Amino acid sequence: MEDICILRIGHRPERDQRVTTHVGLTARALGAKGMFLASNDGGVKKSIEDVAKRWGGDFFVENNVSWRKCINNWKSDGGIVVHLTMYGLRLTDVEEKIREEGKTKKILVVVGAEKVPGDIYNLADYNVSVTTQPHSEISSLALTLDHIFEGKTMNLDFPDAEMKIVPCEHGKRFEN
Amino acid sequence: MEDICILRIGHRPERDQRVTTHVGLTARALGAKGMFLASNDGGVKKSIEDVAKRWGGDFFVENNVSWRKCINNWKSDGGIVVHLTMYGLRLTDVEEKIREEGKTKKILVVVGAEKVPGDIYNLADYNVSVTTQPHSEISSLALTLDHIFEGKTMNLDFPDAEMKIVPCEHGKRFEN
Repeated sequence: MEDICILRIGHRPERDQRVTTHVGLTARALGAKGMFLASNDGGVKKSIEDVAKRWGGDFFVENNVSWRKCINNWKSDGGIVVHLTMYGLRLTDVEEKIREEGKTKKILVVVGAEKVPGDIYNLADYNVSVTTQPHSEISSLALTLDHIFEGKTMNLDFPDAEMKIVPCEHGKRFEN
Repeated sequence: MEDICILRIGHRPERDQRVTTHVGLTARALGAKGMFLASNDGGVKKSIEDVAKRWGGDFFVENNVSWRKCINNWKSDGGIVVHLTMYGLRLTDVEEKIREEGKTKKILVVVGAEKVPGDIYNLADYNVSVTTQPHSEISSLALTLDHIFEGKTMNLDFPDAEMKIVPCEHGKRFEN
């Protein structure tokens, strides 16, 4: 599987910081390489990168990108664009095709907030709906990554971690 | 599979409304029956129930429950308690066992916010970690439900819906 990155659009610094942070951390935990943020919010970039630093790996956040340029560059480089939207085709109907394409092409997953520019629907190679019901861009992203990666990124090992959990039945354990 | 419900603990009305709403909507979209909210927040109850009314089904939200009573009642009724925590056993290591138990026992999935009472770890039948990395209670819940249900609740049909999406490649389509 080629690399997967996220493009977060529609982020409003005054109210979406927590949700966008969850989007970034979910992307990292499930094996995406980084997130482009189509908004100027250095705080979100910093808080995701702080977690990434402590917990390992090299997940990146690029702040203040133009979503249009980001998509166009991605496509010029031969990548495909998967836009998560309640209105798209069912994930379960397209995941195999996306996975197949992902073997040779990098994938940009576009995660919108409440309103997205209408152009996105046409610029995307795939408009994908997770359940066709309203819920959360965070859960949509998690399920999309888990399905595209076929569960293989559920228990990633992140290099150079300062913090690492040892799974246990009760309580909390860290690796020393 | 018996019923699955959610118990949301640690919700702070002043700052967790959006995340808790996403938790509730994710639970509904993926086939849980309802959510117990261990906090007094009629606004969250109303916003989830408003969505449920328009989009169909009979997902419930019970406001202002005592988390301890809720767990004790659930267990007295023969149900099992699955607590989602970064520190628990890997979802992939326990999902089969939980699914097996879920054939005859109802399941309460406990979804915490930043801090949870230490007792929960001992009251839970399963402490479950989704990836052992920090990300989001919303993605943890989504992945847990999808795994326990083996993907069978990805495209549920909700009865008596006022709104229903027709999946499409580009743009937005509703059923009339």
